Formats: sequence, structure tokens, C-alpha cells
Amino acid sequence: MTEQTEVLVKKYSENGITTLTLNQPERRNSLSMAMLEALSAELESVADDVDTRVVVIAAAGQVFCAGHDLREIRDQLDSHEFQLKLFNQCSKVMQQIVNLPKPVIARVAGVATAAGCQLVASCDLAVAADTARFATPGVNIGLFCSTPMVALSRNVSRKQAMEMLLTGEMVGALKAEQIGLVNRVVDEQVLDETVYRLAATIAGKSGHTLKIGKEAFYQQLEMGLAEAYDFTSEVMAKNLQAADAHEGICAFLDKRKPEWKDE
Amino acid sequence: MTEQTEVLVKKYSENGITTLTLNQPERRNSLSMAMLEALSAELESVADDVDTRVVVIAAAGQVFCAGHDLREIRDQLDSHEFQLKLFNQCSKVMQQIVNLPKPVIARVAGVATAAGCQLVASCDLAVAADTARFATPGVNIGLFCSTPMVALSRNVSRKQAMEMLLTGEMVGALKAEQIGLVNRVVDEQVLDETVYRLAATIAGKSGHTLKIGKEAFYQQLEMGLAEAYDFTSEVMAKNLQAADAHEGICAFLDKRKPEWKDE
Amino acid sequence: MTEQTEVLVKKYSENGITTLTLNQPERRNSLSMAMLEALSAELESVADDVDTRVVVIAAAGQVFCAGHDLREIRDQLDSHEFQLKLFNQCSKVMQQIVNLPKPVIARVAGVATAAGCQLVASCDLAVAADTARFATPGVNIGLFCSTPMVALSRNVSRKQAMEMLLTGEMVGALKAEQIGLVNRVVDEQVLDETVYRLAATIAGKSGHTLKIGKEAFYQQLEMGLAEAYDFTSEVMAKNLQAADAHEGICAFLDKRKPEWKDE
Repeated sequence: MTEQTEVLVKKYSENGITTLTLNQPERRNSLSMAMLEALSAELESVADDVDTRVVVIAAAGQVFCAGHDLREIRDQLDSHEFQLKLFNQCSKVMQQIVNLPKPVIARVAGVATAAGCQLVASCDLAVAADTARFATPGVNIGLFCSTPMVALSRNVSRKQAMEMLLTGEMVGALKAEQIGLVNRVVDEQVLDETVYRLAATIAGKSGHTLKIGKEAFYQQLEMGLAEAYDFTSEVMAKNLQAADAHEGICAFLDKRKPEWKDE
Repeated sequence: MTEQTEVLVKKYSENGITTLTLNQPERRNSLSMAMLEALSAELESVADDVDTRVVVIAAAGQVFCAGHDLREIRDQLDSHEFQLKLFNQCSKVMQQIVNLPKPVIARVAGVATAAGCQLVASCDLAVAADTARFATPGVNIGLFCSTPMVALSRNVSRKQAMEMLLTGEMVGALKAEQIGLVNRVVDEQVLDETVYRLAATIAGKSGHTLKIGKEAFYQQLEMGLAEAYDFTSEVMAKNLQAADAHEGICAFLDKRKPEWKDE
Repeated sequence: MTEQTEVLVKKYSENGITTLTLNQPERRNSLSMAMLEALSAELESVADDVDTRVVVIAAAGQVFCAGHDLREIRDQLDSHEFQLKLFNQCSKVMQQIVNLPKPVIARVAGVATAAGCQLVASCDLAVAADTARFATPGVNIGLFCSTPMVALSRNVSRKQAMEMLLTGEMVGALKAEQIGLVNRVVDEQVLDETVYRLAATIAGKSGHTLKIGKEAFYQQLEMGLAEAYDFTSEVMAKNLQAADAHEGICAFLDKRKPEWKDE
């Protein structure tokens, strides 16, 4: 099933994978306020959708995402109110991805720059075509990529993040893989195959288990070691009470395939 | 000197290296409550042992460690109390390794999965045979590797950790080295040679200095920059009061080998 | 224009790049109290200097920097007061680099050890000759590299940092690049060319933008995700009020080169 708005296409697959496709290639899929609001609404929608187990974020055309819409920003250069609203909306969307109780995979072909690079960094996983390129070039236009660097600097090491931020230069797909910005780089011919095989692997797990794990992952990252262990020990013990854990453990010991109830 | 229980072998070497060997190969060296209690007791014992300067954690047989004992967990599926006790005990052991005032090196041959992967990640250093493989496959049995991810996500970058956690798939030794989970990968034929040469290098240092450094390392990691510098500046100045620092500095300037007093 | 003291050379270039050169090669450019005080004074000076947009830290001779001056420390082995002052001064200089509102690039040829390795780790960017080598060998003289590890462990992964700290062994330039301690490794013949091309690229940006971005970078690193986004969203919206952001965005949309006012 496919739903389409002016800026975004949402496509459900039967196996629990929902793809959100940025669909303004003629505007380089920029994160205009309209695009951000559409993304936010769809992320909210898939969060509760029982048929969605994994989300793929993709883009139509030759550019993955060029970041904010500079024309829109220029037209509102005197409105501090609009600007703050814009950056808050953008930051909200990025955090919705992190907080979504379902894994999100970025499917990256073409360039991903500024908030577009941030979008890739904010996803749980990212697969890139070998032709993909990444940059945080805000410094070139006097507007440092300060929100993108929140996600970037939580993906790659300090010196690599600083080099991207201070020079604004492009980083190729292989380098992006080396520094931790994307998980895998493949020939563009097999990009979809790779992304959807990865998505299907994950969609074959218990949705309830994925939710428990993803939420705990980002929460424990912000804790000290002792607190993180206290927290996750409780999470594990609670996870074990779930029907899917009982089923999974028994199926494993009985050498059969588990049947998830997502609870 | 060698001591042996049902689950663990402890062997002292003359040069200050103590090896703890998981010794239930027929149960894939799983971290049963008995194994965790044995590990905990031995870690407590070596912490105060003046003849132990470096600890090596190894495993007998073809599997390094398969994580928790699923049969044991299944037999206690209705006891939330047992489960919480089990995960708390496991988290305690992992933190004992981190808090041990002596360096701990994992010697990994075969597969290290779930809490077994966590055990490797929790050690200060790890050397793996090229045949070693790593995974956090809890997601496959409905029980997300939430405690293992505490250690894993403090070793490797977010996207790599998330890929292991969400897919449950195996990562080969070379990949594990690239992403930071192990320090070195060598041919299994020279694994012991490599591990014990590394251990001997470290055992040749002042035990008092190693204790100061290891403790400060993990403490400062949880601080902001300014606090970390205030803290470690004090640590350095205090370290300089130690007899071994006096000896080390004078020996270096006199171009002779230092003789440590471990104080 | 060049200014020279006994320990440090400061050279201004016309394009906004200021080079601070450690200039005691006969003492392996060690970070004596005199060197640290000279560095601190010059960093304070360039912070406010409107003609300096990027700082390069270099060293004369075959050794980049051998860390603290052990003869000086030995001569003061009984003065806890001197030692604490020394480590505090060193920690102050490292934090001045991080807090300087201008990017700092390390130009590394030869060995960088102990606080010398920390100096490289503390810079925003680092370029190394292929002959450069790095170590934190304090453990060899009974004085663990506890302050250097603050910077090191914020550049490289835990197991790599621990290996350097516990063994004290040298790491080659290529390995240093792989683990994140330096950005790029080049033939020593083209080291200056590479460093100054990188510096010139960054010096061509708006100094006001660089200041906003660098300051925000290190601040947000110490925050949780939600706080980091709240903070940087404000930073971005405020950045947009700057003349250079207006100029940059308009220049980009008009396809012309921006003219920065550094405000």
C-alpha cells in the first residue's frame, strides 16, 4: 500500500517494512518545514502501526537530502521565531527517529549534506551506495552545522567530525563506512537488495523485543557504567517475562523456529 | 600452581600472570550462575593477590563463551527473583573486571556470543584468533542483549553496535578488530604466544602504577573534560609521590632498568 | 611576522594562519613549566587576535614533543606543590586549545609521547608525517599517563587507548590514523603543504562562524541527546542572526563568493 503527499511517499510492504521516501528531488529533497512536518507525522504514525516493524528512510532522485531549504530560510531571515521553530522541528524529527520503538535504516544514494547528513547519522543503521557522499558544509555559508553535529559527533570520532565540520568538504562512501557514519557500502545496483535484505532480517525478529532493546540502547548510552548495568539488568529480567522471550528460548532449545506474538 | 573447580581453572605463572579459564566446554562455557559465582570469587581473590599483576581470561575447547545458560533460564522462567539475581550477578562480574586494580586481557578463540561477547568487551584488552567470531544474538530468541550492549556500546561505534544487536549476526575477528572490540587478531597457532607476550610486557610494569592508571582511566571517562582534568592532575601529582615513580624517573634518567617495589 | 622566545616561535601568515612552533629541539621540545607558560600566554594572545583565524602547532627538529621534562620533575621530586602546579598548568594549556575560539591543527613529525601525545589529541585536527609515532609511556617510568589519557580516551576507542597506556609502546602514524588520533598521514615531504592547505581552507571561512561552531561542538559533546538538541537549536537560530550567515546564504543562492565580516 502506498500513500503519497507532495513531499513524502509512504509505502507498506507485507513483511512489516515501511519505507518513507523523501520525494522532492527537484528541490534536492531539502528538509523544508513542510518536509519536516510530513516526516514527523509519518514517524508518529508508524510508531503505533502494528504492521510496521522496521522503517527505511529513502529518497527519490539523484540527491539523498541537501539539508535545510535555504530559499525558505532566506525568505524568513528576519524572523527569529520562524528559525527557532524550524530548528526545533528538525531536532524533533531527528529525536523521533532515535526514540521510535522500531529500527530505522537509512538507504543513501547520492549526496547527504548538512541536516541530510544528520538524518543518516540519526538512523539506527545506514547502507550507502558507493557513489554516496556526505558533508556538513554549513561553515561555507556562515551557518555552522551545529544541530547536525549532535548526531554526527555521536557516530564518528572527534577529529573526523571536526574535519567535516570545519572544512565542509565531501566524504566518500568508503570513508564514511570507515569512520562509522554508515554500516555498509555497496554498488548502487544492489543497494535496494542489500537494504531490504537487512530490513527483512530485522523484521523477522519479535517487534516487542526490538522495542525493548532499541529503547534501552539509547537510554543506557547516557548513563555511567554502574547505572547502566542496574538499568539494563532490570530490563533483561523484565524482558524475560515477555511471551516472546519464553517462546524464543523454548524454540531455540527445541530447535524449531519461534512464532512471535509481539508481546 | 593450578587450582581447579568444576567450572573454572585458575593458573598462576611465576611472572605475575594469572589465567582464569572457563572450563565447561561441554556446556559451551556458558555463564551459568555457578560459573558467574566462581568468576566473581576468583576476581575478588586475584584483586588482593600480590603475586598477580595481570589477569588473562581464557576458555577451554572450541567455544569461548556462549553467554547465559538457556537451560538454566528456562528452568526458572517463572522466577523473576532468580532472573534478576542472575543478571545482577552477571553485571557484577563484568564490573568487577572493570574495577579490578589489575589489567585483564581476554584470550578469544572460537565464538563469543551474548554475555560471552560482553565478557570480551568488558576486559581492558582482547586478543583474538583469526577464527574467533562475535555476536549479540539475544534478539533471535526474544531476549534482547540489553546487558551485553552496555559493554559493547562502550567499545564500538553506535551503528556497528546496533547492527550486531538488531541482526544478531556473527562478526568475524578482523571486523571485530576494525570496529574496536578486540585489539589484535592473530593466527590461532600463535594466540597464546601473543597473549602472554602482551601480558608479560604489562606484568613488567609497576603494579602500583597499573592500579593507579587503570582506576583513573575508567573514572575520568565518566566525567566532563574540566572535571576529568582536575581529577587526573591530582592523580598525577599523587602518583609522583610513590616510590615507584621516583625509581622509574631516576632509572630512566640514569639509563638503567627500574626495580619496582609496587608502592 | 615572527616573534621568538627561548622556547617558542610564533609566526603570523597573511592569510590568517598563526603557527606556534615548540622550539627546544635539544630538549626534545619537552613541556617544561617554561614551555607550558609560553604556550599558555600565546594561546591567550591568539584567542583575541583578529588576524588569527587558524592556529597550527608545530615543532622544530626530529621530535615533536617528548612530554614533561623529567629532569625538571626529578629536581622537584619532593615538592608536591610544584608538581600539582605543573600538572594543573599542563591541563590548563590542553583545555585552552579546546576552548580557543579558533581551530587548532597539530602538525606532527617525529615522536609525540606522553603529554606530547596529549597535545596532538587535544588539537581539533592533526596531520602527521608517515614517520610520526605516538606513545603514552608513563607506565614505563612508574608515572601513569593519567592526564594524557583524558585527551587520548576522547579521541580513540577504549581498548586502543588502554593498549597504549598499559604497554607504553609506540604506535605508528597509519595506526594512529586508523584509531582516530590523527586525521591524515602524508609523506613528510608534503607535510607542510598538506597542513597549510588544510589550514587555508578553514581560514577561508568566517571566523565568527568557526567560533560559534567550535564552542558549541565541545559543549554539546558533554550533554545528553535532548539537551544537546535544545542547546544547538538555539545556537543555530542565533547563528542565523549573524551578518556572515546572511551574507553566506545570499552569496550561495546568488552563486557568488561570500565576503565575510567576521560578525
